[in-house]
Amino acid sequence: MEEIFLADNSLGEEFVVTLFGESHGRCVGTVVDGCPAGLELSEADVQHELDKRVPRTPSITSSRIEEDKVEILSGIFHGRTTGAPIAMIVWNRDVDSLPYERIKNVPRPGHADYPAMVRYGGFNDYRGGGQFSGRLTVALVMAGAVAKKLLAVERIEVLAHSLSIGRIQSKADLTREELRASVYTNAVRCGDRDAASSMERAILQAAETGDSLGGTVKAVVYGVPIGVGEPLFSSLDSELSKALFSIPAVKGVEFGLGFEASRLTGSENNDPLVIKEGKVTFETNNAGGILGGLSTGREIVAHVAFKPTPSIRRRQRSVNLDSMENTELEMAGRHDPCVVPKAVPVVEAVVSIVLTDLLVRSGVIPKVLKGSM
Amino acid sequence: MEEIFLADNSLGEEFVVTLFGESHGRCVGTVVDGCPAGLELSEADVQHELDKRVPRTPSITSSRIEEDKVEILSGIFHGRTTGAPIAMIVWNRDVDSLPYERIKNVPRPGHADYPAMVRYGGFNDYRGGGQFSGRLTVALVMAGAVAKKLLAVERIEVLAHSLSIGRIQSKADLTREELRASVYTNAVRCGDRDAASSMERAILQAAETGDSLGGTVKAVVYGVPIGVGEPLFSSLDSELSKALFSIPAVKGVEFGLGFEASRLTGSENNDPLVIKEGKVTFETNNAGGILGGLSTGREIVAHVAFKPTPSIRRRQRSVNLDSMENTELEMAGRHDPCVVPKAVPVVEAVVSIVLTDLLVRSGVIPKVLKGSM
Amino acid sequence: MEEIFLADNSLGEEFVVTLFGESHGRCVGTVVDGCPAGLELSEADVQHELDKRVPRTPSITSSRIEEDKVEILSGIFHGRTTGAPIAMIVWNRDVDSLPYERIKNVPRPGHADYPAMVRYGGFNDYRGGGQFSGRLTVALVMAGAVAKKLLAVERIEVLAHSLSIGRIQSKADLTREELRASVYTNAVRCGDRDAASSMERAILQAAETGDSLGGTVKAVVYGVPIGVGEPLFSSLDSELSKALFSIPAVKGVEFGLGFEASRLTGSENNDPLVIKEGKVTFETNNAGGILGGLSTGREIVAHVAFKPTPSIRRRQRSVNLDSMENTELEMAGRHDPCVVPKAVPVVEAVVSIVLTDLLVRSGVIPKVLKGSM
Amino acid sequence: MEEIFLADNSLGEEFVVTLFGESHGRCVGTVVDGCPAGLELSEADVQHELDKRVPRTPSITSSRIEEDKVEILSGIFHGRTTGAPIAMIVWNRDVDSLPYERIKNVPRPGHADYPAMVRYGGFNDYRGGGQFSGRLTVALVMAGAVAKKLLAVERIEVLAHSLSIGRIQSKADLTREELRASVYTNAVRCGDRDAASSMERAILQAAETGDSLGGTVKAVVYGVPIGVGEPLFSSLDSELSKALFSIPAVKGVEFGLGFEASRLTGSENNDPLVIKEGKVTFETNNAGGILGGLSTGREIVAHVAFKPTPSIRRRQRSVNLDSMENTELEMAGRHDPCVVPKAVPVVEAVVSIVLTDLLVRSGVIPKVLKGSM
Repeated sequence: MEEIFLADNSLGEEFVVTLFGESHGRCVGTVVDGCPAGLELSEADVQHELDKRVPRTPSITSSRIEEDKVEILSGIFHGRTTGAPIAMIVWNRDVDSLPYERIKNVPRPGHADYPAMVRYGGFNDYRGGGQFSGRLTVALVMAGAVAKKLLAVERIEVLAHSLSIGRIQSKADLTREELRASVYTNAVRCGDRDAASSMERAILQAAETGDSLGGTVKAVVYGVPIGVGEPLFSSLDSELSKALFSIPAVKGVEFGLGFEASRLTGSENNDPLVIKEGKVTFETNNAGGILGGLSTGREIVAHVAFKPTPSIRRRQRSVNLDSMENTELEMAGRHDPCVVPKAVPVVEAVVSIVLTDLLVRSGVIPKVLKGSM
Repeated sequence: MEEIFLADNSLGEEFVVTLFGESHGRCVGTVVDGCPAGLELSEADVQHELDKRVPRTPSITSSRIEEDKVEILSGIFHGRTTGAPIAMIVWNRDVDSLPYERIKNVPRPGHADYPAMVRYGGFNDYRGGGQFSGRLTVALVMAGAVAKKLLAVERIEVLAHSLSIGRIQSKADLTREELRASVYTNAVRCGDRDAASSMERAILQAAETGDSLGGTVKAVVYGVPIGVGEPLFSSLDSELSKALFSIPAVKGVEFGLGFEASRLTGSENNDPLVIKEGKVTFETNNAGGILGGLSTGREIVAHVAFKPTPSIRRRQRSVNLDSMENTELEMAGRHDPCVVPKAVPVVEAVVSIVLTDLLVRSGVIPKVLKGSM
Repeated sequence: MEEIFLADNSLGEEFVVTLFGESHGRCVGTVVDGCPAGLELSEADVQHELDKRVPRTPSITSSRIEEDKVEILSGIFHGRTTGAPIAMIVWNRDVDSLPYERIKNVPRPGHADYPAMVRYGGFNDYRGGGQFSGRLTVALVMAGAVAKKLLAVERIEVLAHSLSIGRIQSKADLTREELRASVYTNAVRCGDRDAASSMERAILQAAETGDSLGGTVKAVVYGVPIGVGEPLFSSLDSELSKALFSIPAVKGVEFGLGFEASRLTGSENNDPLVIKEGKVTFETNNAGGILGGLSTGREIVAHVAFKPTPSIRRRQRSVNLDSMENTELEMAGRHDPCVVPKAVPVVEAVVSIVLTDLLVRSGVIPKVLKGSM
Repeated sequence: MEEIFLADNSLGEEFVVTLFGESHGRCVGTVVDGCPAGLELSEADVQHELDKRVPRTPSITSSRIEEDKVEILSGIFHGRTTGAPIAMIVWNRDVDSLPYERIKNVPRPGHADYPAMVRYGGFNDYRGGGQFSGRLTVALVMAGAVAKKLLAVERIEVLAHSLSIGRIQSKADLTREELRASVYTNAVRCGDRDAASSMERAILQAAETGDSLGGTVKAVVYGVPIGVGEPLFSSLDSELSKALFSIPAVKGVEFGLGFEASRLTGSENNDPLVIKEGKVTFETNNAGGILGGLSTGREIVAHVAFKPTPSIRRRQRSVNLDSMENTELEMAGRHDPCVVPKAVPVVEAVVSIVLTDLLVRSGVIPKVLKGSM
């Protein structure tokens, strides 16, 4: 492979989110272009979302403690969005690059280290994964905070939670009120308190053995009007899955019954239409709120599978790129024994960004928020 | 929802595929823009791929028999691509719209009928699902035929097959040679002959009871160089999943171990790097050939879940939009009792289109095919 | 230059026009994606615009007589747009490629022949300029016909006319009524009848001497609301100029006073704001209806410069690419001694397409035309 | 106009430049995405270009003195680009917003004030024009500095200069060496020293009378290989003009002979092809290096017309939007009596960005700069 192509770090067509920054560089940041004018937005609004992601209990998350304090650089005037691009950054502070210097010629299994080195001809910033780091999700959460405020104006709400961690399953059918009340009250972002305790124990146990866990996040979106999405290539599921797979460690995405639907018959899987309070709706929601790429008016339901954290404290087999010999690698560094708890607000952010873009394009979210004046 | 947005029926950035046509309109067609100049391409090449999709055994596929004969309208000169857009169409011939007229005010469960009607203010062509019809996959296969020829120049091969139909599972670890030799020799596009027989029986049985089945398709890509894809929003998995979810009836996509990875530990899931014949590679391929959104040099492996055909011959509950009352619906029309067999070449086409776009952008596929002169 | 990139033959972000076809291929065509649903549209509507472009008096236009009869292939149902892509083609009939075979190794001065040959490695269709031919403007006019009908719903009208041909100038300040009444009543598409006669004579005279003329087209747009366009890269002037320079033979574009403004002082050039009938407007329109990339509410005024037709019947100097020697070239073929008359409806089409895209994106043109039901 | 659309402040497809910031906000900045890995790049490189734009002689430029010191926030590692997005900012320091508060309900003639207010529902940052300010050109110059360094690797050079200011004309046919040696040695960025003195006097004279001047900038690009650009909508002239019209105050763009070509005959205007030193070239360059949207191998030549600075110290007529009455306006504020000198490095930056994008897409600029290792 002689030449390799470079990145487009932007998402969206009208509400466009661009990311920049690296794990061990000066900052991570985002530019949100195309945000409607007139939305009240403060640094506190964004900080509120960032704080959902921030490590609180170092036992189950990375020992890297970042303040993650947002600064808004542009696009706000008199406390409201102006229609101009909104640039936001978080400065990196707690950075220890030393462990990465020691192993820079020994790619970490489960990470992008080796493909990235080949692709960028060795010029990539390998410290902490550089631009491939989960640290970039800080920027997603900042952009997502803007999207969430816009969706709130339309009474659309995105609620995610840990559905499973390792082999521990949460109850699946939590109500909107249960999700609102409980997800961010525990360290694992699970809406089922019993499962939450088991998940926390499982993570601590994996950490003690120098190992890590994966899990699944469920996202539910309430209040999306009928007909949002595109036939074919910009279908609602296409756009959501594209964005969800951009989150590091995601290996699977399904909507509604997903893979389970492939084992049912049509008569089992089809959701009947019914009249309810004078309106057309679907009695069941096996489709996860999406038919033919369009929203059905029912809640949008997605499951997202995360692999276990690739950084583990166990000795692993890898290669030394200098000597071109097999070797072993032991990671010091700091890492979460399970990324799922941090991923919950990230999934919320990503789903919010995609929906906002589709709704701005559609005119459902107006270009100037008159109601908010 | 006052206003609703409209479609962008194009996929790709440099190798750009645009679709047009409807199930019961004059034709389905595609414009492939950005195809490198100098590729040998004939109508026979495209026809060869179309014939893989075409119904052969009406028992297990739709009784609608289309000749599906491609006409190339532009972009070819002296038997080779010129670099100009390649327009291709298949005229629709065997169209019976009558059944759709009878039920136009009773949306079919499992179809986009109702969301589409809301979205397009009733102006959409509802006959056979219009632009939402699986018939549009004919155009995907035509465009995919061009992509496949380009990939072949780079010795990249995309092979898909039916991994499961209903509850019947194929053997999972078929070799490249087995896939090449057997998939298109049976009606269900399965590489495992025993499973193929069971699948065929299961489909016939579902059809007899007026019901339908779903299933999963596995795609494997051989020969992709290391480092293809983008960090973040244009990652290899992002772009593939976006395109795969644009195929009608897809409800889930996973790469490598996918959802199963979420239940493993890091030490179980990480693929060790090893030196093999003097080159760096990954010993196992739990990652499905993708790390951090970049290709690893191992085969790319994806699973795609299809729901059971929503059109069934059983009486189903729906609503009458004129009287706004609950009603029942019985579909005559023609439909496949299982879309999975037809979906196999469609998955191959879609994966080929996405990879070709990424490889044209990267320069791996050159813009003028000198070697082929 | 080792590798060269390929084309994106699409224009627009929401109302997207894709072109295909060649001068001497089977057809020229377009796919219009993102057209709002519910617009009445017939082949007669499109044909009406095509007929404005068609050669009527062979004396001043090409001796190639094409019927140019449009066929709509998709996107229309019950006489209205459905929201699905609208594909349209015109079959090529009167094609004589022989003259091009004779000179295929002698690039024509003033044409893209030589750069195209280098770029496409010799694989390009050189007959009549292939995809670089002015014949592609047939496709622009077809797409423009859809745009014009949409603009008419919003009472926006685009009127172009020949402002100069060679050194003959039309009166510049024709009224909207004069433009409507007279432009398409003469062969040179000039709104000033006296100038029209002189222009016609000048073209005939140039033709007699085997030479050709250029000229300028003025476009005026009535009824554009205030605030259309984008700051910076998608400003109204940016998007219009990009599209206008895509018309073959265009060498300059200016808005309002254009180059003349560069010689004035600020006090001469600034347009004062005034209250008129209770509304804010600009007293003069030196700005051509655009300030800061946004529409001002006054007419949008653009001048477009066309070079003289490069194909002339005189002996010209060129090179033989086989022998790599200087040589002389005499074109037989058919060509217009002046492209400006044909360019007038093309400029109208292109301006209409750009405005429609901006207005669909803005929501000024709704995504479903309810008023037209 | 009920709803109005919002901005996409990004330019380019592979080498993508996004701008943010406001005249009187915290900063102006840019994110450059898609820059090839391996380019040596320091803050000093960017500062060098910024210093070309900076006011040196307050007599002829704005009395607002900004330090304009660049900070690179991401994308550089060990002194080279990594392939990740390069974010750069300049903090605003010398900001006096008071004059704008006083006149916020009286739109300035010649500025976007009134259209912007309508479009953004009054939420826009009106201080100093907000995002419409010429101050955003600082960000263009930063991004252009990266592009220039990439072009230099390919031995491509972009040289602009003041061709006219008001009615004073520079000599037109300055050599590459004259341009390199003299343009940035005088305050008006003119390559003809005699004309430079006259221009300077003309600007001072306009300033004394409280008035302003416009002018034209000529850009010449040396070293572009044959065949760069696209047929139709991404032609070289289309992409350049789109970007040039995004510079505030530009009212006209032409290539080669431009508007003058419209008055010539074909035999006068066509550039003959000739063999020169064994290579095919064009004897003259009336086409300005572009045929059919592709580069010809000759220098690319563009003229860009700038209107006179709209901010003048004279009393002007406008309206009071509170009382809806005609009124008069006298601007204090700070402004350049002629924007052309500052525009010269901006034109260089913009042309460099467009060419770099096209050359990265084409593979002429490789995605990893191996030669520079």
